[in-house]
Amino acid sequence: MRQLLTAGLVMLTFFTNAFSQEKTVAERLGYPRDAKLLIVHADDLGMAHSVNEATIKAFEIGLVNSGSIMVPCPWLSEIAAYARANPQADLGLHLTLTSEWTSFRWGPVSSKDRVTSLLDKDGYFHLTETDAADSADPKQVELEITAQIERARSLGIQPTHLDSHMGTLYKNKALFEVFMRVARSQKLPVRVAKSWFTHTDFLPSMLSPDDVYIDRILDINPAVAPQDWAKFYTDALKNLEPGVTELVIHLAYDNAEMQGATSNHPNWGAAWRQRDFEFFTSDAFRKVLQENGIKLITWRELGKLIK
Amino acid sequence: MRQLLTAGLVMLTFFTNAFSQEKTVAERLGYPRDAKLLIVHADDLGMAHSVNEATIKAFEIGLVNSGSIMVPCPWLSEIAAYARANPQADLGLHLTLTSEWTSFRWGPVSSKDRVTSLLDKDGYFHLTETDAADSADPKQVELEITAQIERARSLGIQPTHLDSHMGTLYKNKALFEVFMRVARSQKLPVRVAKSWFTHTDFLPSMLSPDDVYIDRILDINPAVAPQDWAKFYTDALKNLEPGVTELVIHLAYDNAEMQGATSNHPNWGAAWRQRDFEFFTSDAFRKVLQENGIKLITWRELGKLIK
Repeated sequence: MRQLLTAGLVMLTFFTNAFSQEKTVAERLGYPRDAKLLIVHADDLGMAHSVNEATIKAFEIGLVNSGSIMVPCPWLSEIAAYARANPQADLGLHLTLTSEWTSFRWGPVSSKDRVTSLLDKDGYFHLTETDAADSADPKQVELEITAQIERARSLGIQPTHLDSHMGTLYKNKALFEVFMRVARSQKLPVRVAKSWFTHTDFLPSMLSPDDVYIDRILDINPAVAPQDWAKFYTDALKNLEPGVTELVIHLAYDNAEMQGATSNHPNWGAAWRQRDFEFFTSDAFRKVLQENGIKLITWRELGKLIK
Repeated sequence: MRQLLTAGLVMLTFFTNAFSQEKTVAERLGYPRDAKLLIVHADDLGMAHSVNEATIKAFEIGLVNSGSIMVPCPWLSEIAAYARANPQADLGLHLTLTSEWTSFRWGPVSSKDRVTSLLDKDGYFHLTETDAADSADPKQVELEITAQIERARSLGIQPTHLDSHMGTLYKNKALFEVFMRVARSQKLPVRVAKSWFTHTDFLPSMLSPDDVYIDRILDINPAVAPQDWAKFYTDALKNLEPGVTELVIHLAYDNAEMQGATSNHPNWGAAWRQRDFEFFTSDAFRKVLQENGIKLITWRELGKLIK
């Protein structure tokens, strides 16, 4: 009996070791398995001048180290000029299939009559990610997101990664398939987190060992009261688990332009983005990173793992 | 000799009377021939939140009484909501074939592959009116300006008149021909002034007695120093000639959005538009109108003359 138990323990140890020998993404990057690695990532660049201005300021302050650009939006040229002048910046593309604000709209990069399934009755992208995903013809999605990547490259942006504005490309298997096919052909990493595997059941089967994905995404949500903003982020960072985490944030100034764009929509609105700006440019944020041994990394590093 | 002279004078008087019997546009509107009639017209609505906000404020103050909307621009939805809520507002369309700011761009309403002659290498409208006019295929112009009118109507805007952003549609005969054909089919008056006939030689021959056009356009120009802004407008209004004049102005606030949009371009830039806003919402402007017997009229009144 004791022999059997010992044999069982040996086998268990063997399998546990075999499993643990599979390198984590942190290890593949050359860090210890227990390193706490963080990408501090600002979404929605190009959407508005206020977003560009606040995010560039945060990049300069140095604690926000990554961001992604909405190619169909009116202020693309401004952020493209920044990208050309700062080729080291970790800038990806926030592939966009929704136009979610009511006073301020945008539409596709590709010719409208070739992507009719992506348009609402007014000729813009749909207002919600649900409408966008439900109506989208995957072939037209492939055409449009490829056009967004080509437009970005033609303006001198060399994207380091791809993600999906409002998560439209994760809404169903057909869209995610298109997203991964385009990303693989571009050899770019995609915002995918292991922590999503439990609630997006098609994800694990659609990823291969060659794909690079991170451990988890961290973002704030409308349940957090404005006065608890710093506390939410501070607590989350104090409790950060080892591995690669992307902290997804939204920066802008709470000014007339942003108030106009996000009027009647406090979630991800002007004041929300100003609160994010304040925390992520603060000494408090710098301190919590230092005190908790959190190291900032970028999508550029992750992209180097792609063969 | 005296008889001959008398006969000559009679004939001269007859011809002068015959000429003067031709009704002026002021008379066709029911005003005396010597009335000083003025449309105070803000251009560029829909371009930016700052433009919309300042112009709507000026409409409310009541001395700016007309404006025109740029349909391809990102803030169209905001001004369309205003138009739906204020059906009495004198709003026309500022037909747009240029995207002239470098950090902030827009493109056509129609499908891009159908209007390729209107696009620059980045897929937006051309930066200058000269490039736009030189490259434009008139058939594609007709398609695009018709699409802009249709989009406006579908959003509930009932345009009272048409004009051309940066004057692109007046740059050559072929473009003006398209413009007039579309305007006539829509039964809408067009910004055309008799005072232009001397420098745009193809204009007179292309207008018919049924067309409605005004006597002159008045606008400020970059030669006026900022401190002389109010003086320029005041003097121009004190010396206003009888007939119908359109005072073409550009309103916005000198805020971050507008500074970002017009950076490195003081002409028609953020501070310029703030100066216009200040003068045209001032008591000084109200006073000069009153003291000089100037009556405000709108394009809606002019449009009623079209059969």
